[in-house]
Amino acid sequence: MDREAFFKELAEETESKILLVVLDGLGGLPGEGGKTELEAAWTPNMNQLASRSALGLTHPISYGITPGSGPSHLALFGYDPFQYEIGRGVLENLGLEVELKKGDVAVRGNFCTVEDQNGHLVVVDRRAGRIPTEKNRELCSRLQEVIKEVQGVEVLFTPGMEHRFALRLRGDGLAGCLEDTDPQHEGFEPLPLRATCSQGEKTVAVVEELLRRVRDVLKGEERANYVLLRGFSEVPHIPSMYELFKLKAAAIATYPMYRGLARLVGMDLLPLEGMKLEHELETLKRHWKDYTFFYLHVKKTDSYGEDGNFWAKVKVIEEFDRLLPKIMALKPEVLVITGDHSTPSKLKAHSWHPNPFLLYSPYVRWGGEQLFSEKACAWGTLGQFPAVEAVPLMMAHALKLKKFGA
Amino acid sequence: MDREAFFKELAEETESKILLVVLDGLGGLPGEGGKTELEAAWTPNMNQLASRSALGLTHPISYGITPGSGPSHLALFGYDPFQYEIGRGVLENLGLEVELKKGDVAVRGNFCTVEDQNGHLVVVDRRAGRIPTEKNRELCSRLQEVIKEVQGVEVLFTPGMEHRFALRLRGDGLAGCLEDTDPQHEGFEPLPLRATCSQGEKTVAVVEELLRRVRDVLKGEERANYVLLRGFSEVPHIPSMYELFKLKAAAIATYPMYRGLARLVGMDLLPLEGMKLEHELETLKRHWKDYTFFYLHVKKTDSYGEDGNFWAKVKVIEEFDRLLPKIMALKPEVLVITGDHSTPSKLKAHSWHPNPFLLYSPYVRWGGEQLFSEKACAWGTLGQFPAVEAVPLMMAHALKLKKFGA
Repeated sequence: MDREAFFKELAEETESKILLVVLDGLGGLPGEGGKTELEAAWTPNMNQLASRSALGLTHPISYGITPGSGPSHLALFGYDPFQYEIGRGVLENLGLEVELKKGDVAVRGNFCTVEDQNGHLVVVDRRAGRIPTEKNRELCSRLQEVIKEVQGVEVLFTPGMEHRFALRLRGDGLAGCLEDTDPQHEGFEPLPLRATCSQGEKTVAVVEELLRRVRDVLKGEERANYVLLRGFSEVPHIPSMYELFKLKAAAIATYPMYRGLARLVGMDLLPLEGMKLEHELETLKRHWKDYTFFYLHVKKTDSYGEDGNFWAKVKVIEEFDRLLPKIMALKPEVLVITGDHSTPSKLKAHSWHPNPFLLYSPYVRWGGEQLFSEKACAWGTLGQFPAVEAVPLMMAHALKLKKFGA
Repeated sequence: MDREAFFKELAEETESKILLVVLDGLGGLPGEGGKTELEAAWTPNMNQLASRSALGLTHPISYGITPGSGPSHLALFGYDPFQYEIGRGVLENLGLEVELKKGDVAVRGNFCTVEDQNGHLVVVDRRAGRIPTEKNRELCSRLQEVIKEVQGVEVLFTPGMEHRFALRLRGDGLAGCLEDTDPQHEGFEPLPLRATCSQGEKTVAVVEELLRRVRDVLKGEERANYVLLRGFSEVPHIPSMYELFKLKAAAIATYPMYRGLARLVGMDLLPLEGMKLEHELETLKRHWKDYTFFYLHVKKTDSYGEDGNFWAKVKVIEEFDRLLPKIMALKPEVLVITGDHSTPSKLKAHSWHPNPFLLYSPYVRWGGEQLFSEKACAWGTLGQFPAVEAVPLMMAHALKLKKFGA
């Protein structure tokens, strides 16, 4: 039996409530004082909760592998990140709050500078000198105005930061199996469009015409006079969390990419009155009755980790800790506090280190730790396990999984 | 995506250096004093290093499985030991420093004593009374002189210890899918040659003629008057560590089998001026600039374990510890000290117990242990994991793996 069939058979719909709090990039490395961000933070509430919880460490993908946010979140939502790959074009569109449906082809684009050299179009700046975002918006809206559709395929340009934009193609018979046109090095021609599957030919024809028309519109520009396309991809077919786990799932997240990822697995996106953690908690409280699974995402731990700002990351952890009693007042049957991946300030980047994982429920075998830290988690009673097992573990503790076999 | 494709995509070539020290058969069991060999050893340098390292335990194959040196080393080098099986004939030849190429068929041979009983050739001693190695050498060189080739296939006999020898067949169209001729019990005829794949027929014909000629040469011998053949096999196709992980890898090992295993995965074999640990370190130092991955093998821990000599094994560990500062002076970005399998003196044999594993790097989450021992490793922050994940983990800590997904 495959994983999907297995959980479809065992999952039971009940009223108990699961709350998954993702402090993005939570795990860290020891800083100058010898403590990680989580260890350096003053977290009396989490420490107190740890003493009634089971602790462990999760591996987002596998040993030594640093994940992007796409696969690491899929794993945390209970989906095998090798089975469901999310293309870069899809993530780019999701990150810009573009709605994607089955059959859409999603692409990541760069404005670039090309030069005609003896009849050859040569890329002289792959990022068009990192044009200002303002300029990007202006160019995207000009392109959108002139190119609404190509050969019956609806085209959507969405500006990102600096030279980056997202492109969505919507129509019948499209396929995402196209190779990048970005030659990766300056001084080369853009690569010709090539499909790696037989269903890709129509898409090649559409995008070839699209590129000719884009070139016409941008020809007069000094810097952003052409585009390079990368990460052609389609929304993978992912069963919803309801189909797979019978969880009525809702997402509370402020950043578009995480909202997009949650939507991919069929979560409802709950409205927020502001971007702060307090606003997220208000929303949680307001909708507490309506769902059985909540995903609450805190972004700033990761952002400050990526900035290398140890103490700012510490502060975000402390801020969450102060609000924890409000969460506990909702009396979730199961509460998990974890990260999707580690983002140690020391590395200023995502890393491969496993995530601290705290699982509170009346049904845990707690280990008597009085501390929520990477080390306490390494010694925790849950041991180390793949992040994809987090949802089954939460469901079990919420008594939402039937017995396997007689 | 399979494991090979996955790492080929994520691996990045960088200048950082990884040193993998394998103290063969390091792990042990408590002796009379209640301590294992590693615990009984005086190892101030490793203990001090442990306090800045991450500790864990690795399983060479899986729970309860005792590995031979072939699969346990393959796993440590990052190759799934179930995907790449190394036949006994290949190992025997490698162990005797015989060079093997793709397409060669490698075999393990025994001199034996046969008797003509009513027209049947019956094995009366499968080991020819364990003839002296001296005699073995003489017989092999006689065979080699008379039988240089059979049906256009080049034949190479290499004497081993006592009654054992290695046979290599080199020519077109050979296959390793032949069954053993050893009947496993005395009083039986040697088994007829049989191929288990259709490409094996030519090899059957070649070996049948070879056996007739061997019998002719040995007929007059009192004890070693025939041979039994086992472990027909071919070199598996293994991508090199450079192809798979983009590591420029070199091996420092004194024993032929380990040198052979390292060559199988494409490592360069570094020259040694002697068989001692000091010589290995001199070689390491001399070639430190030329590679990004070093495998340094210490054999004696295993040999003394197999002899059941607890204190001699302790001494080898202590000898390595004394030399550790010389290794640290090279400033490796990542240093791992581990075993390929356990060889407890108590068992006088390889065992299934997981291997102590110490990983030093500036990017570990250390656990504050002040001790390198099996127990400290069982409580270490790396947890217990398959040995095949050691290379990904080392590469991650040396910042040689790209992010997976966006």
